[in-house]
Amino acid sequence: AVPSLAQAQSTEPRVYNSNITLVEVRAAQKAWGDALVKISDDFQSGGLAKAKTTANAVLDAAYGYNLGPVLFKPTLTVAPQTFRTTKEGALAYFVGGDTNFPNDSGFALKGWKKVDIVNAAVHINGDVASTMGKVVLTDAKGQSTTVDKTWTFKKDDSGVVRIVLHHSSLPYTPN
Amino acid sequence: AVPSLAQAQSTEPRVYNSNITLVEVRAAQKAWGDALVKISDDFQSGGLAKAKTTANAVLDAAYGYNLGPVLFKPTLTVAPQTFRTTKEGALAYFVGGDTNFPNDSGFALKGWKKVDIVNAAVHINGDVASTMGKVVLTDAKGQSTTVDKTWTFKKDDSGVVRIVLHHSSLPYTPN
Amino acid sequence: AVPSLAQAQSTEPRVYNSNITLVEVRAAQKAWGDALVKISDDFQSGGLAKAKTTANAVLDAAYGYNLGPVLFKPTLTVAPQTFRTTKEGALAYFVGGDTNFPNDSGFALKGWKKVDIVNAAVHINGDVASTMGKVVLTDAKGQSTTVDKTWTFKKDDSGVVRIVLHHSSLPYTPN
Amino acid sequence: AVPSLAQAQSTEPRVYNSNITLVEVRAAQKAWGDALVKISDDFQSGGLAKAKTTANAVLDAAYGYNLGPVLFKPTLTVAPQTFRTTKEGALAYFVGGDTNFPNDSGFALKGWKKVDIVNAAVHINGDVASTMGKVVLTDAKGQSTTVDKTWTFKKDDSGVVRIVLHHSSLPYTPN
Repeated sequence: AVPSLAQAQSTEPRVYNSNITLVEVRAAQKAWGDALVKISDDFQSGGLAKAKTTANAVLDAAYGYNLGPVLFKPTLTVAPQTFRTTKEGALAYFVGGDTNFPNDSGFALKGWKKVDIVNAAVHINGDVASTMGKVVLTDAKGQSTTVDKTWTFKKDDSGVVRIVLHHSSLPYTPN
Repeated sequence: AVPSLAQAQSTEPRVYNSNITLVEVRAAQKAWGDALVKISDDFQSGGLAKAKTTANAVLDAAYGYNLGPVLFKPTLTVAPQTFRTTKEGALAYFVGGDTNFPNDSGFALKGWKKVDIVNAAVHINGDVASTMGKVVLTDAKGQSTTVDKTWTFKKDDSGVVRIVLHHSSLPYTPN
Repeated sequence: AVPSLAQAQSTEPRVYNSNITLVEVRAAQKAWGDALVKISDDFQSGGLAKAKTTANAVLDAAYGYNLGPVLFKPTLTVAPQTFRTTKEGALAYFVGGDTNFPNDSGFALKGWKKVDIVNAAVHINGDVASTMGKVVLTDAKGQSTTVDKTWTFKKDDSGVVRIVLHHSSLPYTPN
Repeated sequence: AVPSLAQAQSTEPRVYNSNITLVEVRAAQKAWGDALVKISDDFQSGGLAKAKTTANAVLDAAYGYNLGPVLFKPTLTVAPQTFRTTKEGALAYFVGGDTNFPNDSGFALKGWKKVDIVNAAVHINGDVASTMGKVVLTDAKGQSTTVDKTWTFKKDDSGVVRIVLHHSSLPYTPN
């Protein structure tokens, strides 16, 4: 068959679409939650080495450090290492064990079992989309931690959705 | 009712989406064809004055001259007035009667009755989308003219889809 | 003169550019700081009425509520009114005095004199750009408050840069 | 050295910018012209095999077929093979010698020596930019061919600028 003749006869155009969709955004949020739980599970079953391997894979697959800096303000970081714009800084935050980041105990190792996300609003603009809302993390003991979380996701040229911005903070508590 | 409390209780986020969709692109293409036929009909029923009023409204509603230059190479223009990056140049092309554009006889006045579009491909990228394909114009006598046509549509901040690029040419005819 | 003939002779194309630039982002950040100080000054000189008029104008000029929901997590809000996706919610946060938002005392009224911004990273993507970094607010008594702040700015069709996302939080303090 | 501490001390943010610029657009246009001349030169010095190798490399480097369909209406194609949305169709147009495209004699083999581009307008929108204008190709005998040409360039995740749309047509000649 001659592909180009087939194309000329077909009335269905070939379509290229680089835009990110609400469905993809929700899926990326869910994937983040599933990944956090998996790192916790892997820490339980295989210790730090297994958890670190998983966290490294999650960062490669779901964050955009391969594209450039990621704007990441994790929940529990403090100055002068508040922002983790490099993959190393993000890995240290999630699993600890990096002498360059002495304050990191490994957020993802804390026995997380469940992640619930309630978005207040979503802003979709081309191949990037941002969400803002409450995220509730529940651990093995049934204790919940709620954070205010903003994400910006970018769909790359291969169609992979990556986190390029992540600002997480504990809710304000007036004294 | 307190809107913000209602929002906090709702699990459905407010969504902003500036992206253009394939459905909107097809609708914009159809609207262009309908507008061309309408200008022809208005010329038949109300003469140049009526046709010009309609064409002016079409340019305001469906082209992006309000945003900046439009990249417009009409089918039948010749140097030195090949490109019509201003609204005046586009209006002259469609309805003629502008001494600044002496070669324009008014493309949209030629009794068009039907417009058929077959896209070869579509490229969607944020709030802009481009199409390329064959467009067949049929007049009142049943005669058809086929052109190779490229459009780029942009969805503006109000959600209105506007033509920001339009390159139309007669198919190449080897002698 | 005939504009199109002049265009054909000119080798300088007309250029449309909807992209936001680093220069515009820095200017928008500075404008936000200047606006916060102005609201404080207007409160000092003209009371709540004057401060509210200014804050309202700032929201109209510098935020994107005219485009749709703004993803705004102010520093000091608490559930169930954590997120201020409407202009009313933002205005109440900045100047208080709205019975629908009883916890808001008016953040912008606290005598701010100086705003310093240190960006850790910037992400520019089309007509939107995000920043993340430390923002230090200094009041009339010389006391400083540091926040971790993320902004997303969008340049609209008129070229006006507007805040469409704003997540601000006090730094984490381990007990 | 600890990179994150160094970052915290630096006041210069890390910047990610996916936007395409006018400078990059002009460079991509010039590169296209240089590539066309090179294919012609390589045909002269090394025959069809050499020209085809170069054309293949140009398509891989400068067109966006790796991303998806390219909207390409070459100057001299005819139905039913007017549009070359695949790399094979583009290669056949430039160097011929493909029995699937019997009408292609190889546009790039025609001894081109010089390419001059005069843009009427440019439309920049995120990571894509479109140009429209006159392109004059001069061959070894000093004969010139002028075409009306539209290009859309997209900057990919690696920062490489690729042609995703290319509509070229001979100027209209009224009989």
